[in-house]
Amino acid sequence: PGADVAAAAAVMQRQAILTKPPGSLGVLEEAVSWLAAWQRRDMPRLDQVDVVVFAGNHGVTAQGISPYPSSVTEQMVANFEAGGAAINQIAKANGAAFSVVPLMLDRPTADFTVEPAMTPLEFRRALAVGYDAVVPGTDLLCLGEMGIGNTTAAAAISAALFGGPAARWAGRGTGLDADGVSHKAAVVDRALALHGEALNDPWEVARRLGGRETAAILGAVLAARRHSIPVLLDGFVCSAAAAPLSKLLPDGLDHCMIGHVSAEAGHRHLVQELHRPALLNLDMRLGEGSGAALAVSIVRAAVACHTGMATFTQAGVTNRD
Amino acid sequence: PGADVAAAAAVMQRQAILTKPPGSLGVLEEAVSWLAAWQRRDMPRLDQVDVVVFAGNHGVTAQGISPYPSSVTEQMVANFEAGGAAINQIAKANGAAFSVVPLMLDRPTADFTVEPAMTPLEFRRALAVGYDAVVPGTDLLCLGEMGIGNTTAAAAISAALFGGPAARWAGRGTGLDADGVSHKAAVVDRALALHGEALNDPWEVARRLGGRETAAILGAVLAARRHSIPVLLDGFVCSAAAAPLSKLLPDGLDHCMIGHVSAEAGHRHLVQELHRPALLNLDMRLGEGSGAALAVSIVRAAVACHTGMATFTQAGVTNRD
Repeated sequence: PGADVAAAAAVMQRQAILTKPPGSLGVLEEAVSWLAAWQRRDMPRLDQVDVVVFAGNHGVTAQGISPYPSSVTEQMVANFEAGGAAINQIAKANGAAFSVVPLMLDRPTADFTVEPAMTPLEFRRALAVGYDAVVPGTDLLCLGEMGIGNTTAAAAISAALFGGPAARWAGRGTGLDADGVSHKAAVVDRALALHGEALNDPWEVARRLGGRETAAILGAVLAARRHSIPVLLDGFVCSAAAAPLSKLLPDGLDHCMIGHVSAEAGHRHLVQELHRPALLNLDMRLGEGSGAALAVSIVRAAVACHTGMATFTQAGVTNRD
Repeated sequence: PGADVAAAAAVMQRQAILTKPPGSLGVLEEAVSWLAAWQRRDMPRLDQVDVVVFAGNHGVTAQGISPYPSSVTEQMVANFEAGGAAINQIAKANGAAFSVVPLMLDRPTADFTVEPAMTPLEFRRALAVGYDAVVPGTDLLCLGEMGIGNTTAAAAISAALFGGPAARWAGRGTGLDADGVSHKAAVVDRALALHGEALNDPWEVARRLGGRETAAILGAVLAARRHSIPVLLDGFVCSAAAAPLSKLLPDGLDHCMIGHVSAEAGHRHLVQELHRPALLNLDMRLGEGSGAALAVSIVRAAVACHTGMATFTQAGVTNRD
């Protein structure tokens, strides 16, 4: 289903009579209107906010594109499960339920500089894991990822969808130096050359260059659309994971906002290509859903203003002369 | 007292061993370090967060610089007290205590295009009201204001402290059109010409061009410094109110961060002049402490990460190769 235009209009009508100068809550007003449109509800609510983090491992780490070993993905999943990571604290602080979904961590994708990262079957299975992780009735879904090497996958996806050179999309990731970033860009360029014309199909981009966790995010974004659930995307990897939808349909990501513009260089470009509003810009570059979950606090405040404020008439406040 | 450099260093040491790439929480790490420095405490806390809004009326409204009548100030104070304004909802959503302090609303300041806005005695009294509104032991203080006409006062203060022309600082306020903005700038230019050399003294800038509520904010910022309380400033008017301190002492506002960069044109310039970090940028232009109180959620998440995250050793996560 599409956006509920009437619900969005009802929000804007109410915003105009609340005790504040018209438009003075800026992006908060936009966020409420967006939430109403996709929840299909005049008075949006945030009773059930879910943060779901998908984790996967990447064969392209064989090319030496990360200073961390792939074993860290599984270690961090254990940290998520034990409640010790940043995302656990941020989700809890913002009243969001947290879950992590590891996807066959002991079986990394194939090295995409050599062959497609996933077979068609592997790709469909990862998509389905993401699709099934979304619970109908959720009021707001925050998506995140963990996967050593996945900023290289995200750079490859972005370059394939929106054009190169890879250097525009390759950044420092978890902590590469300048030489490391150049090497990463060269690895991406090699992959783009290898897969060639096949990358004209956005699904093939996701299958050949992505990981199981990015495919799962794509599946979750589709499920959210199906169930009328607004989505907060996280940073570079999460946005790149969802990006094929914006190529398949011009309004394919209209039910998504971006929680935070990452310090990872490529994300700023990607946000522009996706034409979706971003809420925060705090120089973070952590992933794991942290930027999406942090932005929940902004959306909560926006809804609190919309539902809790008095109107000019109720408060006896004079509107403009 | 100054910043506790040891507490800030302790924060940075702990941040380096938490389960995340170094620096990947960006401004959140900076915020915790700042909080520790000014709370003088290695593990900062946010048990008592206060939002205090000061309200005053301005004689310069006689010059037709606002589309709203001065009576709205008192009406909005009643709305604050009844819990119906945006700031009430935002403070509540972020676990902050709210109070409003009206300053002689039935007695506007003098029109500063004709004479100083306040006598020396009036100015000292307003400063003292602000100073006394700060409760020692508060963990974080958010300051805000309400006063029809006070973006004109803020533009005048900013131009006097950091240089003109007034057009650089005069914005749309609660909703002027382009002609209204030009008129507002002309009003400010007249005031600057009238007060002339007297404006070389930052205290005189605050007295001659400010309002009772901006003087109270200045007093509250001073009290917070005295009691080692970190401060979140709000938008254009609140930042302009505090700005004289940055002229009196180069580090005079180091215990302050700016909650939100206002859509009001002058604020972006002012943030640069004050050299203080700003947390949010959401196109808001409401005042009443809304941007400061909204940023509390970011600081809360930052503290939650700092105090709640596992270290690499605790979580058994491999640090860099």
